[in-house]
Amino acid sequence: MYQAKELTVSTRGRGLVDITGEVRKAVKGTGIREGLCTLFLHHTSASLIIGENADPVVQRDLEAFFSRLVKDGDPLFQHDAEGPDDMPAHVRTVLTQVSLSIPVKDGEADLGTWQGVYVWEHRTSPHRRRVTVSVLGG
Amino acid sequence: MYQAKELTVSTRGRGLVDITGEVRKAVKGTGIREGLCTLFLHHTSASLIIGENADPVVQRDLEAFFSRLVKDGDPLFQHDAEGPDDMPAHVRTVLTQVSLSIPVKDGEADLGTWQGVYVWEHRTSPHRRRVTVSVLGG
Amino acid sequence: MYQAKELTVSTRGRGLVDITGEVRKAVKGTGIREGLCTLFLHHTSASLIIGENADPVVQRDLEAFFSRLVKDGDPLFQHDAEGPDDMPAHVRTVLTQVSLSIPVKDGEADLGTWQGVYVWEHRTSPHRRRVTVSVLGG
Repeated sequence: MYQAKELTVSTRGRGLVDITGEVRKAVKGTGIREGLCTLFLHHTSASLIIGENADPVVQRDLEAFFSRLVKDGDPLFQHDAEGPDDMPAHVRTVLTQVSLSIPVKDGEADLGTWQGVYVWEHRTSPHRRRVTVSVLGG
Repeated sequence: MYQAKELTVSTRGRGLVDITGEVRKAVKGTGIREGLCTLFLHHTSASLIIGENADPVVQRDLEAFFSRLVKDGDPLFQHDAEGPDDMPAHVRTVLTQVSLSIPVKDGEADLGTWQGVYVWEHRTSPHRRRVTVSVLGG
Repeated sequence: MYQAKELTVSTRGRGLVDITGEVRKAVKGTGIREGLCTLFLHHTSASLIIGENADPVVQRDLEAFFSRLVKDGDPLFQHDAEGPDDMPAHVRTVLTQVSLSIPVKDGEADLGTWQGVYVWEHRTSPHRRRVTVSVLGG
């Protein structure tokens, strides 16, 4: 059986948006008991990650690390049509990912205790991001 | 239902090769209307990414960033059996990915407007790369 | 058809643990001939990679590169509840991945000749890591 649900995620500019609850709900809504949930984000300047969900400082540190690694306005970048955060957003997306899969067990997304699912907005301005939650199984 | 198709991608040395058209065609060819397409590249010195498809400068900038981040001939690397680009190719592969999934909707790979699928050759010399396109669904 | 198997991987502190054999065995054990195998690691300070399996120096160089890129005890990081390797472990996990998919062909995980599957422990102390191997197909 295959079922899919689309989420729209509103971001407030650069940073992580926790979508764990929406993913869990989408998986439950399919009624599939055992299988595989795959998330896909339909953009090139935001991405998906699974990260630590307990301490908000982890999220701050992830952002700090990536901001230092991929500098806004780096003269290396020629593509800056949409501003100094444009090309860094593409690089950060490629360094992370736009698809990831989570097993479904007993009707639930089988995340580890400390795992949260996040949309990472890499642009400095707010965006609406489309995420497809696909579930395959029985 | 499960169907798979193998693509052979000829690269011209380091850089991105757009395989979006071949992926779209492979998905259509399966006749699967709703499901999940998963790509897998069977190598350790090239990778798969989804990146911006509109401005070729983005591809140049991605390459420039990764070349600076993972330097050919870096004395840190002891593994250089195949040359100064050998170990950097492995690192770049690990920083990106060899598998990624895209939802299939209405018989089509449901990529975002600006998303293209690329094989990223990390070696400086041309190679033939094998990619499996797997489609699950109904 | 969907089948899943859980692996427990004991790590000896930071470094790669080859799980290729266990993954191959789990795939064979499902009896599925054609389909998709997806691995998921249920943690935020270890990850999964596919890397070169021939020369152990590649693994040493990967570790050397990531240790230099994401420094233990970097004053940038505020989250250090569990020590100087705590936040770097989260960053390294995000730079790699916790899920990856491999096609199943003729009843076997269809890895490339030089591809091995590894759990990468990013903490300096040993841990037990849970990995789910999910196989979909027929």
